Amino acid sequence: MREFQVLLVAGTHGNEINASWLFDQWDKKPELIRTYGVKIIKEIGNPSARKKCTRYIDRDLNRSFLPDLFDSSSDDYEINRAKYLINRHGINADDPCQIAFDLHSTTAGMGCCIVIYGRRPTDLALASLIQNRLGLPIYLHESDKSQSGFLVESWPCGLVIEVGPVPQGVLNQQIIQQTKLTLEASLEEISKIKFGKSRFPRQLIVHRHIGSIDYPRDMNDQTEAVIHKERQGNDWQPIDLGSPLFINSTGDIIKFLDNTNLVPVFINEAAYSEKNIAMSFSKREVWFFLSEWKDALIDLIS
Amino acid sequence: MREFQVLLVAGTHGNEINASWLFDQWDKKPELIRTYGVKIIKEIGNPSARKKCTRYIDRDLNRSFLPDLFDSSSDDYEINRAKYLINRHGINADDPCQIAFDLHSTTAGMGCCIVIYGRRPTDLALASLIQNRLGLPIYLHESDKSQSGFLVESWPCGLVIEVGPVPQGVLNQQIIQQTKLTLEASLEEISKIKFGKSRFPRQLIVHRHIGSIDYPRDMNDQTEAVIHKERQGNDWQPIDLGSPLFINSTGDIIKFLDNTNLVPVFINEAAYSEKNIAMSFSKREVWFFLSEWKDALIDLIS
Repeated sequence: MREFQVLLVAGTHGNEINASWLFDQWDKKPELIRTYGVKIIKEIGNPSARKKCTRYIDRDLNRSFLPDLFDSSSDDYEINRAKYLINRHGINADDPCQIAFDLHSTTAGMGCCIVIYGRRPTDLALASLIQNRLGLPIYLHESDKSQSGFLVESWPCGLVIEVGPVPQGVLNQQIIQQTKLTLEASLEEISKIKFGKSRFPRQLIVHRHIGSIDYPRDMNDQTEAVIHKERQGNDWQPIDLGSPLFINSTGDIIKFLDNTNLVPVFINEAAYSEKNIAMSFSKREVWFFLSEWKDALIDLIS
Repeated sequence: MREFQVLLVAGTHGNEINASWLFDQWDKKPELIRTYGVKIIKEIGNPSARKKCTRYIDRDLNRSFLPDLFDSSSDDYEINRAKYLINRHGINADDPCQIAFDLHSTTAGMGCCIVIYGRRPTDLALASLIQNRLGLPIYLHESDKSQSGFLVESWPCGLVIEVGPVPQGVLNQQIIQQTKLTLEASLEEISKIKFGKSRFPRQLIVHRHIGSIDYPRDMNDQTEAVIHKERQGNDWQPIDLGSPLFINSTGDIIKFLDNTNLVPVFINEAAYSEKNIAMSFSKREVWFFLSEWKDALIDLIS
């Protein structure tokens, strides 16, 4: 039987430097982060981009875990990097990991949160445990055909830990502390499952992805209006019908024309402008915890 | 007699995008920014770096205005860009400008401020007028041999308008508004001089540059401790003897060992890590306004 291992990835985007710094420190001081007996493998996702303090070299690594592309003879650094990580630590590799955590930061005021992709029972079970422990919000990214190939989707269970706001290329004590705290709590929860000591919650609160909107743009595709200051930094706060979204240079305001209590996330994330995303909208939902989620996670870990 | 003109430069650092965005909007809407009859020339300092949303291509443009380098046959994009700007709009060019404003943003919590380089009477006079109008702080950068070649030094009078905090590559309504406000106030003050309507203040408050400190680093030159959260974002606030400066991954704190009321500025600016600057220290001083400053500025403008 193969040993249970958790893959921890930092620096999947090279200019999100806080988790990578934490890993470096951890290498020097093995006691820095408590792992509660869980065997972990650490990787810097995109070491070349990290060196240059840029998001990526050829393409976004966290949109490059696309098996269709792996068969091609792509020269893109990130395609090869995705292949490397899967070949080395994928579920069928020689040194396999069953669960992956991908550690990110954002310029948006997201606080500390978990992102999951789709409704895999294993992800929902693990996210429930972490939410129950720390109270943090869970952003359920799904039904978004324009975005795929996320790292954690290539493992049977995988979560993103996302922390902000912090500029790209800036180390920040609070961001580092939040990353460390969430990582340690996650490993402790995994450890409890391993040793049969878990207590799963009765419910899970998710912010389900509904869609994204772009910045208003002119005919040359240039940003024509910016995020209104009432929105800036106010991620997770539901917006009312008629609230301001964008403002142009002469003060004209574009208002929000929806009355279904949508909750904006990733407002004004620096890296998303090139993806034509000014913010995404989510819907807060309370889900009953299903025992099949628990079973799936226990199966994977035991 | 040559016409009096003011050079306005945005995007000297390509990833400081707010002022460049304001210039684009201004091109489309000529009434956007009031110039009070002052003839202005607008330039994007580093258009190639702007396209890539990076600080620079080969070297920092705002450390490249070094006449010694102009004689060399450097291939560096920024050296050639500096030459271009001086040859086109320098004081001896065909289309000369007498005053230059260089518009920057920072990831540090600097608010809106003016930076001047050295004690040129023209700069001190103009900065006094703007401070008297808006109340903003003036950072006097001088006696720093490790840093030279700033753009505005190549014009007989030149000021940096610096606004933050904002991440690199992020448009922010408030940053844009502060930039616009300071620019309009500056042009109005220049206009008043032109028309003999200026009222110069009796004093000037400067924050005089004393020195800079680097992040604590290990033997491999990697950052070993980060800015303490009591310092983060608290630019312009004097620090007391014994106050925390840095904290390492295990919680050890490096304290401030000076009791001369130094005032930190540019705390944790993303782009300064490569310059080995974690923060700079300044000393707040109140100077009497000298009539020779006024005479120098009036001479230049009239």
